[in-house]
Amino acid sequence: ELLEQIALFFQAPDQRCNAELPGRGLKITLTAGPTQEPLDPVRYLSNHSSGKMGFALAQAAAELGAKVHLIAGPVQLSTPPGVQRVDVVTAQEMLESCQQLQAQTDIFIACAAVADYRVESIADQKIKKQPGQQEMLLKLVENPDILATLATSQSSRPFCVGFAAETQAVEDYARRKLEKKNLDAIIANDVSDTRIGFGSDHNQVTFIYREKGEFYQEALPLASKIDLSRQLLLKIFKLYSKQDLTRS
Amino acid sequence: ELLEQIALFFQAPDQRCNAELPGRGLKITLTAGPTQEPLDPVRYLSNHSSGKMGFALAQAAAELGAKVHLIAGPVQLSTPPGVQRVDVVTAQEMLESCQQLQAQTDIFIACAAVADYRVESIADQKIKKQPGQQEMLLKLVENPDILATLATSQSSRPFCVGFAAETQAVEDYARRKLEKKNLDAIIANDVSDTRIGFGSDHNQVTFIYREKGEFYQEALPLASKIDLSRQLLLKIFKLYSKQDLTRS
Repeated sequence: ELLEQIALFFQAPDQRCNAELPGRGLKITLTAGPTQEPLDPVRYLSNHSSGKMGFALAQAAAELGAKVHLIAGPVQLSTPPGVQRVDVVTAQEMLESCQQLQAQTDIFIACAAVADYRVESIADQKIKKQPGQQEMLLKLVENPDILATLATSQSSRPFCVGFAAETQAVEDYARRKLEKKNLDAIIANDVSDTRIGFGSDHNQVTFIYREKGEFYQEALPLASKIDLSRQLLLKIFKLYSKQDLTRS
Repeated sequence: ELLEQIALFFQAPDQRCNAELPGRGLKITLTAGPTQEPLDPVRYLSNHSSGKMGFALAQAAAELGAKVHLIAGPVQLSTPPGVQRVDVVTAQEMLESCQQLQAQTDIFIACAAVADYRVESIADQKIKKQPGQQEMLLKLVENPDILATLATSQSSRPFCVGFAAETQAVEDYARRKLEKKNLDAIIANDVSDTRIGFGSDHNQVTFIYREKGEFYQEALPLASKIDLSRQLLLKIFKLYSKQDLTRS
């Protein structure tokens, strides 16, 4: 605990004393990792998100001077210095945590790979295989769309940034997602490329945003997730400050 | 690499030079961890097995002088010294690895939490949520039963030990599983008890075995997974040597 404090003191000096930091005064909430949707006490449905991109963004945001809340699904990562972390398991728990922080969030960045569907009814006991039962139908129901829920809020809507992890027609899907969910910006990446994305320490993304009804698109070069996070956050802060001026 | 060799030299001296070790000359194959059954390139069905019990058994078996192969599902654990590890993802891959080793296996210990079902057809691309699709039916088909496959083999059948991780009527289910799958012994534990089992470093189990058509049952006290592994292996080796004498 004391060691952590000392490490924090040396790792993030800018955060404490430099009023010039671009994230100064901003309250950022991020989601990261997968969600797990239980079938019974032992089985679950999930996905391959490692949480690395969301954790890198949280670290970079704190280093840039922002106040950061990180809502994390089940991942094997340690909390970046200066970041407030909330651990959740299911999409429903993640939504509740985001809504609790919504009123105190300027910028919401949804990096988690939230399960689209959950199992309709979770069994209290481990489901037993019935003799000779060669097939099983699993009825799934739609999970809440966390990002769309916050982006279409009637009150205290934060500036909303999404991710689009796709395996085909990446930028096309991303642009449609931006429109449909009423986002301010979206970060698209191709997870079929095994050099980057899920589990990797590197990523290559396209930053897509809307300004006065027009779409803009910037392809960023392959970089480490932490370097990429700094670049993306500077772009997001700039966009946010313009929109903030427009609004006020 | 050199450091690993040096560490191995000091950690497992008995294995190299003590002919009195109870596992000396035995070839043991173990499975550990969960399996992951993909829906598409990003989603999967899995379970909460941490692999700790199987890895502890592999470590203890190597320390007791046996030649150990460990077939591991996706887990966050390092390979115990002296153990040959094979990494797999799905139940089908795990079965293939077990069958490849079967002819050179004296004792087979199935500790992995193998998914009973897999998705009927795996999508090549990430499955897209269709607008307004509030429900989804996932058709699952039965996976091969790895333990039963090896235990009912007509040739080179190893001595077979299973695990029964249950949340209710634990010993009853375990005994039925032992009979149905034609096992020599089964290790039963109650995973609804959060102090033990999945993810924990401790476990409390009941060892159930058959000898001359009779069932025997021994409840072992709560212990660390490594201590418990040593106790269980000594019981297994004793049973195996008796049966081996009967056979020859």
